[in-house]
Formats: sequence, C-alpha cells, structure tokens
Amino acid sequence: ESNNTVLKGISSSYRNKGDHVIISAIEHDCIMECASFLEKQDIEITRIPVNKDGLINPEDIRNAITPKTILVSVMHANNEIGTIQPIAEIGKICRAKKVFFHTDASQSLGKIPLDAQKNSIDLLTASSHKLYGPKGVGLLYIRNGISLTPLLHGGGHEKGIRSSTVNVPSIAAFTKAVAICQKEMKAESQRLTLLRDKLITAIQKTIPHTYLNGHATARLPNNINLRFMFVEGESILMQLDKYGFAVSTGSACSSRSLTPSHVLTALGLKPAEIHGSVRITLGRWTKEKDLIYLLKVLPKIIKNLRKISPFSNLIQ
Amino acid sequence: ESNNTVLKGISSSYRNKGDHVIISAIEHDCIMECASFLEKQDIEITRIPVNKDGLINPEDIRNAITPKTILVSVMHANNEIGTIQPIAEIGKICRAKKVFFHTDASQSLGKIPLDAQKNSIDLLTASSHKLYGPKGVGLLYIRNGISLTPLLHGGGHEKGIRSSTVNVPSIAAFTKAVAICQKEMKAESQRLTLLRDKLITAIQKTIPHTYLNGHATARLPNNINLRFMFVEGESILMQLDKYGFAVSTGSACSSRSLTPSHVLTALGLKPAEIHGSVRITLGRWTKEKDLIYLLKVLPKIIKNLRKISPFSNLIQ
Repeated sequence: ESNNTVLKGISSSYRNKGDHVIISAIEHDCIMECASFLEKQDIEITRIPVNKDGLINPEDIRNAITPKTILVSVMHANNEIGTIQPIAEIGKICRAKKVFFHTDASQSLGKIPLDAQKNSIDLLTASSHKLYGPKGVGLLYIRNGISLTPLLHGGGHEKGIRSSTVNVPSIAAFTKAVAICQKEMKAESQRLTLLRDKLITAIQKTIPHTYLNGHATARLPNNINLRFMFVEGESILMQLDKYGFAVSTGSACSSRSLTPSHVLTALGLKPAEIHGSVRITLGRWTKEKDLIYLLKVLPKIIKNLRKISPFSNLIQ
Repeated sequence: ESNNTVLKGISSSYRNKGDHVIISAIEHDCIMECASFLEKQDIEITRIPVNKDGLINPEDIRNAITPKTILVSVMHANNEIGTIQPIAEIGKICRAKKVFFHTDASQSLGKIPLDAQKNSIDLLTASSHKLYGPKGVGLLYIRNGISLTPLLHGGGHEKGIRSSTVNVPSIAAFTKAVAICQKEMKAESQRLTLLRDKLITAIQKTIPHTYLNGHATARLPNNINLRFMFVEGESILMQLDKYGFAVSTGSACSSRSLTPSHVLTALGLKPAEIHGSVRITLGRWTKEKDLIYLLKVLPKIIKNLRKISPFSNLIQ
C-alpha cells in the first residue's frame, strides 16, 4: 500500500512538474504493476536494467533523468536475489537533479543499516511482516515538504495522507519489532552472513552445475538464490517440503504463477535456468544444525530429480 | 479503504458506461471525501438530502438516476444519528434501473439483520473494529460479475482486487467477531433497544430543552444522539469524561475538527443546535447500572453548564 501511495500519489500531485518516472527492472510486483497502471494514465516509465549480478549502474539513472522526471524508485534490496543497490549514489544523483528518490526498503529494514538522510532518500517504504512484526501494517517515510495525493480519502487520519482508523496495536507491535531488529542487527547480520556463505559454498561443492543468482557480497545476509541446472525449482521445493524446509521459486506473492520471474529474467538468465532457481532464506530461528540437515538431504534430491530430467543427457 | 475501493474503482472501471454517481448527504467522511475527489476528475456527484429524521426518500433516488448513472451509494445506518435507511426499496429501484447499489454497512453489520441478496445490494462494505474485531481489517462484498479497478496494484492477491500480503490473523479474528455478533444479535439488539429507549425517555424527562436527533424507531439499537439546548456538546463531553463516560460530539474521525457535523446540518439543524449535540453509544458491556449512574450525573452537568451559558437568559 505504501508503494502504491508513493507511485500514484507523487505522479498525481507533481503532474504539473512532469510525467516521467524511473524504476529499476527488478522492482517488486507492486512497483512494477503500479508503473504499468500509470503508463495507462500517460505517465512515461523508464525501467533501468541491471547487470548479471542484479546491480544497477547509477550512471544509467543519471542518463535517464529528463526535465520531465519527477520520481526515481529503486528498491534497497531485492526480494528474490537479495542484491543491495548503491542507493547512496542514486540518492546523490537524484538530489542533484532535483528529482524525488524513493526506495522500497521492505527487504532491508532491520536487516542492514539504513539512513534516509545520509542516502538522500525522499520517500521510504517498508513492511512490518518482513521483520517479524504483524501483517497488515507498513511504513511510509515522507521527507518534510513533500506532498502527495492520498490513496484513501476520508476522515483525514495521519495528517490527511491515509484516512482510515489507525491500527494502533499493530503499529505499536511493528515499532517494537523494528527496535528488536535494530538492537540485534549487527550480531544477527554477522551470524547470518556467515551461515549464508557457508551454505552457498557447501552446496556448490557437493552439487555440481549449481550457480548463485545475484551478487556474492552486495547481498542481504539472509538471502540465498541458487540455480540448479537440469531440474525444476518447483520439484525441489516439493521435495524439500517433505523434510520440513520451506523454500520458494519466486517471490511469495507470485507463488501461484508460472510466468518466469522478471527479476531473474532481468539478470539475463534463460527460462530453463530460471525454472531451476530456488530461493533459500535464513531467519532469526535458523540454526547451523538446520543447514547441516539441508546439506544432507538436498544433494540426494537434486541427484534423483536429475535422473528423471529430460535434460539428463546434457549433464556431464 | 473498502469504501474508497468501491467509489474510485467503480467510477474508473465503468467510466465508459457513465460518469454520474449518487450518494446521500449524510454519508461517512470517507464516501463524502471520495465523492469530492471524483468531482475533480469530472465525475458528476448528486447528494440526496434527508428529512429531519435523517431518512432518505427512495423516490428521490429514482428521480436522480439518469442514463449516465453508474453507482448509488447509501449507507445502511448512519454513524452519528443511527438512522437506518430503507435500503430494500433503494436496492429495488437501482436493480430496476440497472445501476449498481453500494451500501456502507460499517455501523450495522452484526447489529441488525442484513441480507445483500434480499436487498438487491451489489457492493457492501464494513469494518472489523466496529463490531469488536481487530482494527485494520475490513470487508468488501462484490456481487459476481462486477469488476472494479483496484486501489492497490501488485502481486495480485485476493483475485487481483487488493494486492497486499493478506492479513490472515486479523481476517480470522474479524470472521470470529462477526460470528459472535450474528449469534448474539437477536438478544443483544432487544436488550440495547430497551436500554436505549429507557435512557432517551429518562433524560428527556429529567433535563428540559432536550431533543432526539435522528429517527425514533428506524435507529440502530446502540445509538443515542441528543441535543441539549443552550450548552456546548464539547463541554458535556469533558464533564462526562470525569465520571468515566466516553461520549462524542461528532464522528470519531472528526473529533479534532470544529466544523459542524454535515450529518446534523443535513437534518436542518442550526449551528447552535449542532454544537449542543452529543452522541451516546451503548455496547456489549453497557449495563443498566451504567445508565442509572449517567442519569445521576448528567442532569447536574447540564444544569451547571446552562448556568454559565451566554444563552441562559433564553431558558424559560
């Protein structure tokens, strides 16, 4: 909802200033779909490509900005491949060009350091349930002096930006969840980064034809996204589920869709490579012993699936 | 949010069919403000007046419908004066004229019987926290075959009507809250109606120059709205608060605004009469002894306030 508010609200309230919005090619569906919706209302959208690691080149943003540009929206960290974007550089460019900079920090808030002022962020959005807070509550930071057309009209709650009875208990719980994450961030992020890299190395060592999607180091501590050649990610998911592991093949939202992920497509991967990709995320309750168990069952699963794969003759 | 979705969504998706929307003059702020927002986008809005009891004449709706009308939105029961509208007749007229009928049932769901099919309702909205469910969750009923432009674009949740991570715990709690209300409705509605009428009679008997706002019988069981001549509702509120009674002078949403209520204005009341009006609502935990205590303190409060009133010379 916050992302919808930003894209639609800014496009509406600054329409007299311009009609051009820049996003990255790997934004979350809510940004992608809002952008498509705005295109139908004659807003011009530029989608900035990423390199094979999922990184944006800030210079591409600079070159895409025109006198008609009102907003640049680039997510802080990606939900599928965990790649962390150079938001400080992007923010600097936007501020210099006097264009609003929005970052969707749903994946990063509470996981890695984030400073709106240092990064020249004008608008920032995040979601409670991504950091162990309750569902149904989110965050929208608007720098002083920016006005936007509200999505919800009514009693004028929250200074007129979001008319709706304020969900105080959930907001309080969200605040507490953020505080806990902030407090534990340094230690937790070190712990998860270590586990993440151990697991990636071990899987690649034990399972041949396995590649990491996304950047090796500019990456969320909790995110692993691997492509296992010659197998279907969906089959890996179902097999792992039997052993109590919940992984995913795309974003959680599109789990019922068979369209190849637009994020992995943007990395330049072929459909077959995308279908063999699996996202494994670690969390507050992931222990090393869980990973040891995963390393015990996963190689067998991949081996068995490759045996029945129509591409098995391609495996050397 | 549901009301915003209905007004904006239907106006957008059926724009090729027409550009005229009819509402009542006493809708909740969220409908009123959405209507004003739509007017800026060249949607024509007709606001149907109410009589001195707050009732709409269904014939006024019939006469207001033109070939360009796409939607009629009339609330089931009013949030300030509790007046229950003749939605069955309005629904019948809309169905015959092939115009969508929406009713905002936020105040009535769980309190009085409500059948969407029998009342020819095409779209129905309600809110969880009005019937003891959690805040931050609402309800939107859309009759089969009606499509509307979503307010929130994204992952395509809830059949594409509302893209946002589904707040399952709150929805489950809301469902349970509705079930409890449905089960207790008959007995609870009888109990509250009795208390309501007893209290109205007793207050009018003990405090002169006191009048009921809204209809005497076509009224929510839990709603009382009285105007005390020659005093300020705000002062009554503050005095009652000292004794532990929470009453209100307008809708809860506009409690920080001094603009006279548009609902009471629509009844034909003068500003001075509106400012002397107080809404007293009963609830699941209201006992007869609470009312006895109220009857003990309220006459004294009014008497004292009238003593210092600049209009005291008008009191006979």
